[in-house]
Amino acid sequence: MVRRATVVPCARSAEVFDRVQAGSVHAAVIPIENSLAGSVAEHFDLLLTRDVFIHAEFHLRIRHNLIAASGVPLQRIRRVFSHPVALDQCRDLFRSHPEMQAVPFYDTAGAVRHVIAEGCKDAAAIAAGQAARQYGGRILLAGIEDDRQNYTRFLLINKSKKIGRGANKTSLAFALKNVPGALFKALSVFALRDISLSKIESRPMRGHPWEYVFFVDILRGDDQGARNGLHHLGEVAEFVKVLGIYPAAKTESGTRPRAHFELE
Amino acid sequence: MVRRATVVPCARSAEVFDRVQAGSVHAAVIPIENSLAGSVAEHFDLLLTRDVFIHAEFHLRIRHNLIAASGVPLQRIRRVFSHPVALDQCRDLFRSHPEMQAVPFYDTAGAVRHVIAEGCKDAAAIAAGQAARQYGGRILLAGIEDDRQNYTRFLLINKSKKIGRGANKTSLAFALKNVPGALFKALSVFALRDISLSKIESRPMRGHPWEYVFFVDILRGDDQGARNGLHHLGEVAEFVKVLGIYPAAKTESGTRPRAHFELE
Repeated sequence: MVRRATVVPCARSAEVFDRVQAGSVHAAVIPIENSLAGSVAEHFDLLLTRDVFIHAEFHLRIRHNLIAASGVPLQRIRRVFSHPVALDQCRDLFRSHPEMQAVPFYDTAGAVRHVIAEGCKDAAAIAAGQAARQYGGRILLAGIEDDRQNYTRFLLINKSKKIGRGANKTSLAFALKNVPGALFKALSVFALRDISLSKIESRPMRGHPWEYVFFVDILRGDDQGARNGLHHLGEVAEFVKVLGIYPAAKTESGTRPRAHFELE
Repeated sequence: MVRRATVVPCARSAEVFDRVQAGSVHAAVIPIENSLAGSVAEHFDLLLTRDVFIHAEFHLRIRHNLIAASGVPLQRIRRVFSHPVALDQCRDLFRSHPEMQAVPFYDTAGAVRHVIAEGCKDAAAIAAGQAARQYGGRILLAGIEDDRQNYTRFLLINKSKKIGRGANKTSLAFALKNVPGALFKALSVFALRDISLSKIESRPMRGHPWEYVFFVDILRGDDQGARNGLHHLGEVAEFVKVLGIYPAAKTESGTRPRAHFELE
């Protein structure tokens, strides 16, 4: 889709969405959920509040590596820095290396930069191989994640509301009146039309504690049945926002998703 | 409930649940969701896999403070350490103090300990007032969170399956066959009995990417209608686990929840 892209670094997720909305970048790729760690809550909120549209989804297999400064051997490692989620996904490493202490850090790649910049002689970081190449670190152990079923789903977002060829999945957000059976009624608009849901997520509404916005993916593109369902949903919901209509990433149901491209 | 408790520190959430399950602690209090940041995914997974039971819920108002080492004035602060979620909840501070740079840290209280231990002359941390008292820091600015509607819901968990007096809320987890309309059918068991849901959450199932476990709270205790509903759910779900039956925290619907006790 984007063959040769210039990468624009952003410090915060809100900045990514603001740049896409303002048109100062053409598109953005954002993580939305991980098969072990769950949803990226902030990105659901930003999809709701910013004027952007989902154009594609991708599943990436996540691989973790133990990375240290060049010349530091495995036997010297006593402290291992990484994001708490990454540390938690590599428990077997710490079981087989009791001399290593897990130290939480705010970011995986940032942890690599830290151990390289500080010239740590007894510390390593857990991150993707890309971080080792970028900061000149050495991979001491590769593929150290406990569970190989570790995938992250990414979305390609853009300002344009165009629906691409082969679109067979729709992401939407809606809010409901706080009355009994409201969600049941809302889901009936899909069930009564044999439209499958592939995901449902509820998020607290900002400024209204314990009221929720629902994020739903349906396995249908822009056909008449789906349009009828959305119209019906509009009758029962407080608001409905279509977040994108795009081709579903190919996965074989119940088995390991076929990753479109691997990080390594 | 627990009038005089000895606090046992645990490094990881799994350890908290394991200790409750093994009986080496009497009970634990765990955060489960925040009104701004969303769910604590790992705790949902642990409620599912560990043999523990929810006995109560509490809503705590979260307050952020700018904390520095004693003797460091506000005008000298150039760097502010805290957990990314806390930094993100204090954007107004950084707008009105452009000389301050936000620096992500893995933990709010840990950031206070860091600036105190290092004797930082130009750095502060964002955390609860308790952290200032614990590590001997000084609060330079109090209540700096942008949105006062910032609450965290905590659960009291215990090994015993006893249902307390006044229980009017039930938390459950269930998995569904991956067939169209499955969630609709599952929710019908409550809708057809006029049982209200107060929350629904879907979590990826470990080892089965893009398959989901549902976490639902219903506003009913252990009465005949609720028992019938759960029995009916058992007919349509792959499995059902009751996570707890307990008294709902008092909140006025649509308005600010009445916090049972405040952090400050």
